[in-house]
Amino acid sequence: MSQTRAFAAHAADQPLAAFTFERRQPRPDDVAIEILYCGVCHSDLHFARDDWGMSRYPVVPGHEIVGRVTAVGDEVGKFQVGDLVGVGCMVDSCRHCQPCRDGVEQFCLEGFTMTYGSDDRHDGSLTQGGYSDSIVVSEHFVLRMPEGIDLASAAPILCAGITTYSPLRHYGVKAGHKVGVIGMGGLGHMGVKLAKALGAEVTVFTRTEAKVEEARHHGADHVVISGDPEQMAAVAETFDFMLDTVPVQHDLNPYLAALKYDGTHILVGLLDPIEPAIEGFNLVFKRRVLAGSLIGGVPETQELLDLCAEQGITCDVEMIDIQDINTAFERMQKGDVRYRFVIDMQSLKKTDAA
Amino acid sequence: MSQTRAFAAHAADQPLAAFTFERRQPRPDDVAIEILYCGVCHSDLHFARDDWGMSRYPVVPGHEIVGRVTAVGDEVGKFQVGDLVGVGCMVDSCRHCQPCRDGVEQFCLEGFTMTYGSDDRHDGSLTQGGYSDSIVVSEHFVLRMPEGIDLASAAPILCAGITTYSPLRHYGVKAGHKVGVIGMGGLGHMGVKLAKALGAEVTVFTRTEAKVEEARHHGADHVVISGDPEQMAAVAETFDFMLDTVPVQHDLNPYLAALKYDGTHILVGLLDPIEPAIEGFNLVFKRRVLAGSLIGGVPETQELLDLCAEQGITCDVEMIDIQDINTAFERMQKGDVRYRFVIDMQSLKKTDAA
Repeated sequence: MSQTRAFAAHAADQPLAAFTFERRQPRPDDVAIEILYCGVCHSDLHFARDDWGMSRYPVVPGHEIVGRVTAVGDEVGKFQVGDLVGVGCMVDSCRHCQPCRDGVEQFCLEGFTMTYGSDDRHDGSLTQGGYSDSIVVSEHFVLRMPEGIDLASAAPILCAGITTYSPLRHYGVKAGHKVGVIGMGGLGHMGVKLAKALGAEVTVFTRTEAKVEEARHHGADHVVISGDPEQMAAVAETFDFMLDTVPVQHDLNPYLAALKYDGTHILVGLLDPIEPAIEGFNLVFKRRVLAGSLIGGVPETQELLDLCAEQGITCDVEMIDIQDINTAFERMQKGDVRYRFVIDMQSLKKTDAA
Repeated sequence: MSQTRAFAAHAADQPLAAFTFERRQPRPDDVAIEILYCGVCHSDLHFARDDWGMSRYPVVPGHEIVGRVTAVGDEVGKFQVGDLVGVGCMVDSCRHCQPCRDGVEQFCLEGFTMTYGSDDRHDGSLTQGGYSDSIVVSEHFVLRMPEGIDLASAAPILCAGITTYSPLRHYGVKAGHKVGVIGMGGLGHMGVKLAKALGAEVTVFTRTEAKVEEARHHGADHVVISGDPEQMAAVAETFDFMLDTVPVQHDLNPYLAALKYDGTHILVGLLDPIEPAIEGFNLVFKRRVLAGSLIGGVPETQELLDLCAEQGITCDVEMIDIQDINTAFERMQKGDVRYRFVIDMQSLKKTDAA
């Protein structure tokens, strides 16, 4: 066992604070990783505050992990000490069910093992995430960071990136398609870049005039102010896909009406009851589709990392020290981040010194 | 012009009554049809009573029409006098937009012309449906009744049949798929037969024990009492498709939970706001799909008629005289029909005699 320095939430109503715990010794198929950077996802905040009623404390959040391999188990074939690697939202799954065999481990019939907040499948210990200086993960769930990728800004690709890329790929978005991206946060700005990378014509829907220029900066071809009925009416029945990244309740009907017949509205952020109610006729009369999508599988995540390196696609990040994580949570809740906080894990050493 | 005898609603609060009007002389591409049978669809009742706020009176309902060709226009190539034919929910569309060219005229970008209650695209007259002794329709929207098909029981194929068949075909339902059919009315019992014909393993979901035997009679492999939480829990994550024929508000969440990952819930009857609210996580966590579907295109409807003739698939019908239509509406509203009323149009002559 090795001592791991981390920041953890110890209760729903307490700020994150320094925490030390032990990671397991690498099993034969494990890779031990020194964590260099970790992105800050909304889920981290939800888990820290037990918003979903499933948190167990202390919880070390973080599932957008980039680091360097420090040790490998005897059976590891894909990685060597010194390799630059990533870990996303999953660290294990049953590996034998059909979804696992198909490389969509997020739909493992036995449930995948979350990077933090799950029971390890082998020793039953509680998994702990990337707000820490090291992690030990089976090589199957470790991604290779392609050469030349900017490590810090690549971290959010492992959740925000793959969450938006996976449905675009699953539904075959390509040149000639018109894609709407709803919401311009961590997920939305990646959705714009990735839909553009796949060749689509991209329109950002935003409530705020302030984001029009930002949207264009990320590559959006058009911007629609979603609160303006005239602008919404002007785009009725024009989109093939809507990528809806909004994590809070909102009215889907105006967006459904903006889809062509056979168009697909993809939810990646909304887990709550869908209210106001969807009008059945908005689906039936034009054979429209409302679909959910959840992160992405390991092969698809590797594909995305490679694509991002090749095309120079990065997440826009704001670097922080781990000591600033509680302030970052507060700012994130207010939408005050362009577009993702990434923790420089070297900052953990300051806590040691203090 | 020729005098057409019919039954029409003259106002939302009045029973249907005898009505005479003029059909147009056949245009060059028109087929004139003597109507032999007409199925009674729920939409007929909604239109008669102006439930959708779009009825114009007098309205002659009926869009499950089977008859015999009595005259053809000069340019008609597909049909001859004496041919047995059918007309469904559509009698025209723009014919040049992409959906029209793709044979999904129900999604015509200019809106298709309904068999009744629409403005004719050429002379602006109000279209009138099949509760009448004749109809004149462009040959493009006329279906050929295949040899050997039972004409009376084939009438509902033109709406109830195609409404359930179209999504099964669109989503590629085939052997190896598990399909749930929700609701066992006119649409549902056809859905069971057609999903079976396509090779699927079919489970009927019904609220009433009384329908268990009926469902098995139609070919259902399994029946689940939807109000029994234990039975519902036992089928969690087991279905590839749900064909939801229920036309009134109901909770979709228990059915979504019964879908496998990537499973699709198809709405064909629900036009109202979807309440209780769909839980976003039911879609997101398993990449499930909620889709609408609307009748079917002309080529698909012909394909279905041919399939039904070939496999001996019929709609279970109760024959009525046109004079009984108001009683039939009342019984239909109570679900007291196994499973579709079909009007024997010869009965119109009795009204003449009276």
